Amino acid sequence: MKLASYEYAGKPSYGVVKDGHLIDLGARLATSGHKTLRQLLTNSGLDTAREIAGSASPDIPLSDVTLLPVIPDPDKIICVGMNYHDHVAEIGRAVTAKPALFARFAGSQVGHLRPMIKPAVSEEFDYEGELAVVIGRGGRHIKEDDALRHVAGYACYNEGSIRDWQRHTSQFLAGKTFAATGAFGPWLVTADEISDPATLTLETRLNGQRVQHTTTDKLITSVPALIAYCSTIIPLLAGDVIVTGTPGGVGLKRTPPLFMKPGDTVEVEISGIGVLRNPVVGE
Amino acid sequence: MKLASYEYAGKPSYGVVKDGHLIDLGARLATSGHKTLRQLLTNSGLDTAREIAGSASPDIPLSDVTLLPVIPDPDKIICVGMNYHDHVAEIGRAVTAKPALFARFAGSQVGHLRPMIKPAVSEEFDYEGELAVVIGRGGRHIKEDDALRHVAGYACYNEGSIRDWQRHTSQFLAGKTFAATGAFGPWLVTADEISDPATLTLETRLNGQRVQHTTTDKLITSVPALIAYCSTIIPLLAGDVIVTGTPGGVGLKRTPPLFMKPGDTVEVEISGIGVLRNPVVGE
Repeated sequence: MKLASYEYAGKPSYGVVKDGHLIDLGARLATSGHKTLRQLLTNSGLDTAREIAGSASPDIPLSDVTLLPVIPDPDKIICVGMNYHDHVAEIGRAVTAKPALFARFAGSQVGHLRPMIKPAVSEEFDYEGELAVVIGRGGRHIKEDDALRHVAGYACYNEGSIRDWQRHTSQFLAGKTFAATGAFGPWLVTADEISDPATLTLETRLNGQRVQHTTTDKLITSVPALIAYCSTIIPLLAGDVIVTGTPGGVGLKRTPPLFMKPGDTVEVEISGIGVLRNPVVGE
Repeated sequence: MKLASYEYAGKPSYGVVKDGHLIDLGARLATSGHKTLRQLLTNSGLDTAREIAGSASPDIPLSDVTLLPVIPDPDKIICVGMNYHDHVAEIGRAVTAKPALFARFAGSQVGHLRPMIKPAVSEEFDYEGELAVVIGRGGRHIKEDDALRHVAGYACYNEGSIRDWQRHTSQFLAGKTFAATGAFGPWLVTADEISDPATLTLETRLNGQRVQHTTTDKLITSVPALIAYCSTIIPLLAGDVIVTGTPGGVGLKRTPPLFMKPGDTVEVEISGIGVLRNPVVGE
């Protein structure tokens, strides 16, 4: 099942994506307290969604809605840095025993087909194709063996980075949370369709040219290990997002560097999920 | 005016602190859409609060409520690292031209008098007394000269840090967002009572012994400059919190190190604001 958050006729909602249409769950479930996809996950509503999707007729063509970030209002967006060997090598760092975590704020996100915005203060707007994990069942001290049972599903993420601001200090946050630089979509594919997140292929394309390519078995800290590590720190909640890291090929480390500029189109494709596509515009 | 978020009889609310009592604004303003202190700030409700506080009689003795983090649900908590020269020196780093930003998640916060929790996985639970700035009027690209007009008020913050987890990688987040490690209180003092946040004195005490002492004119990046820098990255919203950095004297850099342990009491006092006091308990 594919679940998306969207805006239609000026109102935010969410629903099931099926045969190029949306089945509006926001309207059908508003009175049950499932007004957003995050609330649906909080209330363990995936079975309800599946039931409705089995019988309801489609409401709106997908092309008529504005897709929002898969979870527009997560409590936490936890990003992982330096989690593929080829990327660690290209930036000249050493592999660490533990994953490097940093945050992104929800206001930095955009949905599929929405512009990713190059800020006026920088010419170093870089792509980072990544696999995003959306938590379904929250918890603290989740064991690695049990971790995948806490996953609602997976999506594509373009963790757009302002490299010069990222390098202002040792801490990445400043370069990682500019407004409208993090694309998250096009939808969430529920975990029943992706039994092992280490079996996926990820590719990033800039103006149609492949710039990143990996398989997710190459993650240094695996999805279950990330969930265990993060949940040792703080309870994970339904709707929390873990953005698992980018492979080699980033624009910063190319000769010459290849940054995104207004007019470009950037895509992140993950097998079994789909293609997240965004135009790049100037602030 | 002092504003606090609290829980009373199992229900969250917020109000004005006056003569050792609370004037409940949550109940009085719920129908106007100001259910939380963040909403009050979002709706520019400080004048309304002042008006009510001028005429209402006190509702609840302060000692009968459980104080919550000043803003329990901020959109963003932006922390600043290495922002006092004596702290930069004690940790052996170099001063950077720009402030080092990292995040904390809202779930890591506790209010005045609530336990700060030493996690089971670490014996390196350190204090960090800091001045917290709460945004009142949001904005993007705020000019330094205009920045203080965007401040709702100030509070004390104990940015409790799990040092061994902070050192797992180059990125601080893992050690900075453990559950119930960030104390924020006791209340917000509105900006009309603190015309210049660079004129305050800050002191941290562990079991009554002074361990940190500074004046806020020593901040490397000032409060207005922090607001300008952060708002270049992403719009600041009402209720956002900027935690401005800790001075020298942290437990990690003492000989021998001085970490917080269950049974301890830690206090952060800032002139013109008050004392934030928390017991330390084990997970």
